[in-house]
Amino acid sequence: MLTVNDILLIKGPDVMVATSTTTVLEAAEQMAESGVGSVVIEDSSGADGIFTERDLLQRVVVAGRDPVATPLSEVMTSPVATCSTSTTVRDAQAIMFEQHIRHLVVEEDGGLVGLIGVRDVLAALLREDEDKIKELENYKEHSPVV
Amino acid sequence: MLTVNDILLIKGPDVMVATSTTTVLEAAEQMAESGVGSVVIEDSSGADGIFTERDLLQRVVVAGRDPVATPLSEVMTSPVATCSTSTTVRDAQAIMFEQHIRHLVVEEDGGLVGLIGVRDVLAALLREDEDKIKELENYKEHSPVV
Repeated sequence: MLTVNDILLIKGPDVMVATSTTTVLEAAEQMAESGVGSVVIEDSSGADGIFTERDLLQRVVVAGRDPVATPLSEVMTSPVATCSTSTTVRDAQAIMFEQHIRHLVVEEDGGLVGLIGVRDVLAALLREDEDKIKELENYKEHSPVV
Repeated sequence: MLTVNDILLIKGPDVMVATSTTTVLEAAEQMAESGVGSVVIEDSSGADGIFTERDLLQRVVVAGRDPVATPLSEVMTSPVATCSTSTTVRDAQAIMFEQHIRHLVVEEDGGLVGLIGVRDVLAALLREDEDKIKELENYKEHSPVV
């Protein structure tokens, strides 16, 4: 079974991080520059929240907040759902599905080690299934004809 | 092989549509209300462009444009990549991968009939693979022991 660690090995452990006092504009600039759609807000005790493109749409633009004057603390989702590197990809998918969320913060010993999205999870499950198909087709090929 | 039509049968043909003179704020309000991350801009001859949460981040907020005063024509991606309902899901995935895009507008006879995202495509491929695994496991179960 693939785990969250296998996803991080492929996509890398890099997570965009900000603090709760970072402004929306500063976070948006960072996100745009790196071509990512989310940033994790970290405080001294680990991940404190997450701010995504969806939050920018709903809680900033539609809510009429000023990106220059709004700190992430006002518009982030907090607390944030977490998993560990040893969580299986199927369990990660189940958590996302049950909680209607698209991101999971990966923590080890209370420290932030990564961020995975629903697309990472689906792509990993697809790899897992395609390996399984190869294995089964190999069995079929070498089994006697009935 | 699953096709784009199979995806539309599951997610429904509903697409959020706007015109090129719709303002960013109006589009954002529509998107937020419906909980979607993109809107297709349609003119008399079909889909003219697409506007997504990523465009809101990069071309509006970071670019310092005013959502109230900016029409979608200034910030949409145009022309937009399209496919048909008979495109296979694997071909749709290949188009998205090659063009580094996350959405494909589905057209039939020049008319807009749907919008699919990379997550829809991955989820459909996963269903296809899981059916294949069941079929192969069934074969294995009923094949004689070597």
